[in-house]
Amino acid sequence: MSERNNAPPEQLDLYCIRHTAAHILAQAVTELYPEAKLAIGPPIENGFYYDFDLGVDAAGNRRAFKPDDLPQLEKRVRQIIAGNHALVYRELSVAEAQHLFQNQPYKLELIAELAQAGEVISTYRQDSFEDLCRGPHAAHTGQIAPDAVRLMSIAGAYWRGDKSQPMLQRIYGTAWHNKQELRQHLQLLEEARQRDHRKLGRDLEIFIIDEEIGPGLPLWLPNGHILREELEKLAREMEDAAGYARVSTPHIAKEALYRRSGHLPYYEDEMYAPMNREGATYYLRPMNCPFHHKIFASKPRSYRDLPLRLSEYGTVYRYEQSGSLFGLLRVRGQTQNDAHIYCAESQLASEFIAVMDLYRRYFDLFGIKKYVMRLSKHSRAGLGKKYVDDEPMWLKMEALIRQVMLSEHIPFVEAADEAAFYGPKIDVQVWSAIGREFSLATNQVDFVQPPRFDLTFTNQHGNPETPLCIHRAPLGSHERFIGFLIEHYAGHFPVWLAPEQVRVIPITDAHQAYAAQLAAHLRQAGIRAQAMMSSERMSAKVRQAQHMKVPYMVIVGDQEMAEETISVRERHDRQQSGVSLAAFIEHVRQVIDGREPEL
Amino acid sequence: MSERNNAPPEQLDLYCIRHTAAHILAQAVTELYPEAKLAIGPPIENGFYYDFDLGVDAAGNRRAFKPDDLPQLEKRVRQIIAGNHALVYRELSVAEAQHLFQNQPYKLELIAELAQAGEVISTYRQDSFEDLCRGPHAAHTGQIAPDAVRLMSIAGAYWRGDKSQPMLQRIYGTAWHNKQELRQHLQLLEEARQRDHRKLGRDLEIFIIDEEIGPGLPLWLPNGHILREELEKLAREMEDAAGYARVSTPHIAKEALYRRSGHLPYYEDEMYAPMNREGATYYLRPMNCPFHHKIFASKPRSYRDLPLRLSEYGTVYRYEQSGSLFGLLRVRGQTQNDAHIYCAESQLASEFIAVMDLYRRYFDLFGIKKYVMRLSKHSRAGLGKKYVDDEPMWLKMEALIRQVMLSEHIPFVEAADEAAFYGPKIDVQVWSAIGREFSLATNQVDFVQPPRFDLTFTNQHGNPETPLCIHRAPLGSHERFIGFLIEHYAGHFPVWLAPEQVRVIPITDAHQAYAAQLAAHLRQAGIRAQAMMSSERMSAKVRQAQHMKVPYMVIVGDQEMAEETISVRERHDRQQSGVSLAAFIEHVRQVIDGREPEL
Repeated sequence: MSERNNAPPEQLDLYCIRHTAAHILAQAVTELYPEAKLAIGPPIENGFYYDFDLGVDAAGNRRAFKPDDLPQLEKRVRQIIAGNHALVYRELSVAEAQHLFQNQPYKLELIAELAQAGEVISTYRQDSFEDLCRGPHAAHTGQIAPDAVRLMSIAGAYWRGDKSQPMLQRIYGTAWHNKQELRQHLQLLEEARQRDHRKLGRDLEIFIIDEEIGPGLPLWLPNGHILREELEKLAREMEDAAGYARVSTPHIAKEALYRRSGHLPYYEDEMYAPMNREGATYYLRPMNCPFHHKIFASKPRSYRDLPLRLSEYGTVYRYEQSGSLFGLLRVRGQTQNDAHIYCAESQLASEFIAVMDLYRRYFDLFGIKKYVMRLSKHSRAGLGKKYVDDEPMWLKMEALIRQVMLSEHIPFVEAADEAAFYGPKIDVQVWSAIGREFSLATNQVDFVQPPRFDLTFTNQHGNPETPLCIHRAPLGSHERFIGFLIEHYAGHFPVWLAPEQVRVIPITDAHQAYAAQLAAHLRQAGIRAQAMMSSERMSAKVRQAQHMKVPYMVIVGDQEMAEETISVRERHDRQQSGVSLAAFIEHVRQVIDGREPEL
Repeated sequence: MSERNNAPPEQLDLYCIRHTAAHILAQAVTELYPEAKLAIGPPIENGFYYDFDLGVDAAGNRRAFKPDDLPQLEKRVRQIIAGNHALVYRELSVAEAQHLFQNQPYKLELIAELAQAGEVISTYRQDSFEDLCRGPHAAHTGQIAPDAVRLMSIAGAYWRGDKSQPMLQRIYGTAWHNKQELRQHLQLLEEARQRDHRKLGRDLEIFIIDEEIGPGLPLWLPNGHILREELEKLAREMEDAAGYARVSTPHIAKEALYRRSGHLPYYEDEMYAPMNREGATYYLRPMNCPFHHKIFASKPRSYRDLPLRLSEYGTVYRYEQSGSLFGLLRVRGQTQNDAHIYCAESQLASEFIAVMDLYRRYFDLFGIKKYVMRLSKHSRAGLGKKYVDDEPMWLKMEALIRQVMLSEHIPFVEAADEAAFYGPKIDVQVWSAIGREFSLATNQVDFVQPPRFDLTFTNQHGNPETPLCIHRAPLGSHERFIGFLIEHYAGHFPVWLAPEQVRVIPITDAHQAYAAQLAAHLRQAGIRAQAMMSSERMSAKVRQAQHMKVPYMVIVGDQEMAEETISVRERHDRQQSGVSLAAFIEHVRQVIDGREPEL
């Protein structure tokens, strides 16, 4: 550590930079708010934070930082950095530590715990400020670039994350090797803010969530519904080509069904409350699978019918905790791109590979360049609790999936204790264009439910045999996938997905009739187009179309009317005039039909 | 009555024929089962029934008729008819009646009631049999054609329909003016049996209902899902052309939403039980409307945005009594071809007319020739109970609809006390090809919910104004409409709807590869086709395709392979050989794209 800590900021570990920045922030707060009690201040991804207790005011209300307080604190942080103070480590006895931190109750609590555990008690000091800490840190504050540190925001946080404890004031900061890195980070944050699917979802009129209907239950506005329809159409085409048959099944069922499937009791915590009437108990379904099993069982099946691939854009309900709900990414009602593939054990590997191929075709189409596959396995401790108690089958199926992934050269990691209750699975994490991580899709093997539902087929020898079942959802749910796509494309959807593909803008009212006629022609060609008939100025109309991120603007004025042409302005400002409508329609249709990523 | 009763059977009222036939049946049962106690025996639509109590056997079980008993009874009925006995009416005192029926406890109960009500007690007698009855009847049994009477079936029925009363044995019979009429009726019954959507739904693999999932909750098999998709596609096209925007909304919501809409309390009996968790109460939605109101309210609206037409194939749940559930026609979960049109009062008439036009276009497309529109109105007695308490608005809106219907020359009837709780409506009854009646669609005006949801738009004068709302569902629900279509077409769907449009049948195994290749070509042309790869005889394959009512069979053997042609056999047996695949594809596509009623 010592060598590294003498290095210039460019080589200094970001962990040390951020950790030291946290201490400097604590010093600044202590100087400007002498009554502040200090809690903890760790480095985190992209920065650091420190938690403070500012006590209560005369009226008995907890004192809080205001955003206006940050500039002054940041100024003092920069001054301390400029002081080029060494970070000095020392070890203390319990008594010494208790004396040093006698006015700091949170530190005393930590010291007591360290003493209890028999651990070394140490501090780091810079300038006049000494903090309980085990390091590591920069060697001196001058190793930090003062213009690479920024205090970002204030939040409330319970001491130790425990609601029964006092609410503390948390200051978040960010720190980097240099100014350029900070600027890049801030740009990325701004980009992420602009791409936030909740913001864009509102701006582009994709969805709303209404408290009177319920948290986590999005309503899809016309633009959002178009996204759903286009994704469903895509999946239908892909699944038609891959030999799936579509079904649709109820969203509720009697308790007995979920007892048989095992969702009760394994999944009960994540289900909405039961509905009781006339002695029958119904539940909203948390998964589609038992319904598809019933369809498999609805007639005798032979090996000739396998693999049977039943797909459904099926709606399921999961009672997520209110605190964890988040826009479209964590909801309580979702419509899944679901399917269940019933096959003989000898068919499992090829079916599993076909599903993985489907995933990769989708990733190509959506320009998803970074993804990680994870083999999610059972845990021995969870058998009979989270997982059905049949370890030999778990090991066999996990080995089978591992073998498939290896033979297909698909990179993957493994994780214990992350399986479904009925079998192991591949979970897919993807990263959006700006690097935000999403859990999207799964591909699961189920050896538990088919026997529970008495599913059988007659094999080549005329004997009954139990099929295996693959549960797969390459596009996850409409909710999560559209949330991902909004952020991935920053709302600039490829034309085939764009809710509005062309907006026709008449330059003045005199061009409205021509504009309406063009829009009608475009719609007849299956292009989602509308003419903007308001009396606003052209520039205002263009701004509105840009705000809605419409891929193509068609602008028509005197010249266009006279020549029977159009002027085309693309979303990212490329322009062309004197275009014939027929040529434009042909171009747009090509871009749509080919599901081209660009205009 | 007397004159008519002397008329030959052709002129005799069917009511009298059937009523007398019921008495004759009762006489026959009394003679052959002297211990039988008689309940009641009225004429009904298409026939009559009589309820009997056969007592209990030595083991204490209730005695029941067996189907085998019917021929002997029917023989005796014919003999009695042939006896040409007069039907003799007389009036009795209560004491006389009680004496006459001293061994007939059900009759004694009826006599006590008649006495209580101070009504005349009368009997009709033919031959040796006298029954408590107020008539009317035929003058003599010879007026009934013996070969126009048939005993049809046996059923259990509680005395007075009350489950706490004894279960009686009901014999159903049918009776007509003459043998030809009976034959026609039996043919229609057989036709209806063949068309029964529950039977065809199973045979054609359209849907199943599974008791473990729940009564009234159909699961759509792949063939049924295709019907849903095609209908949805049709509605999408029609609604796109008519300026609708599609949305999708959750199937559950908090109690508060339904309180606001008025579904609670007005509609509570028809809703599934509430779900309670963490202090919040959710309900499955019985209607889509409140969700669309929320979308209307999600942003400021101007008169320029109206009419706003929001459509959704939305799933709703209604807790129908288990006794009234019936296949697809009476279910608990249904997906409606729903839409809500928000408009200014000045736009209501033209929007209402546009909806009626949509209905008529659908009826033309589906060959629905007989339908009746009914203006369903409030009742004064129901105001504040079944109906929102604002009679002036009810009268105004009812007058408006009446005016629209009259001005459009649409024939309609009126019925009081049949409205929705929020406004009057047009209900549409249609008749299937064989004359079975279905309630399909509604077109409703709602003046109650928009103000409850604080819906407003800015009118031309810049002032807030409350819109009216039209609720409309021209195709009703998938469930009921597909149930109707199955019976209407007897499963012989037009090609565009047919789940499987073409089946390719290789004459022997040697022609399988060619058959598979043809099927692939057909699928590429967007035609739902499969090749039958089993090793059965060709005739068996043809039978199977006919059983599934596949519109086109393509048969290929040596000659077809050599000539690179196909032989086409249509569902109703028209055949053609030496057809080129391209010509066949063109023909089928034309039939599909035009949604032609015939092949």
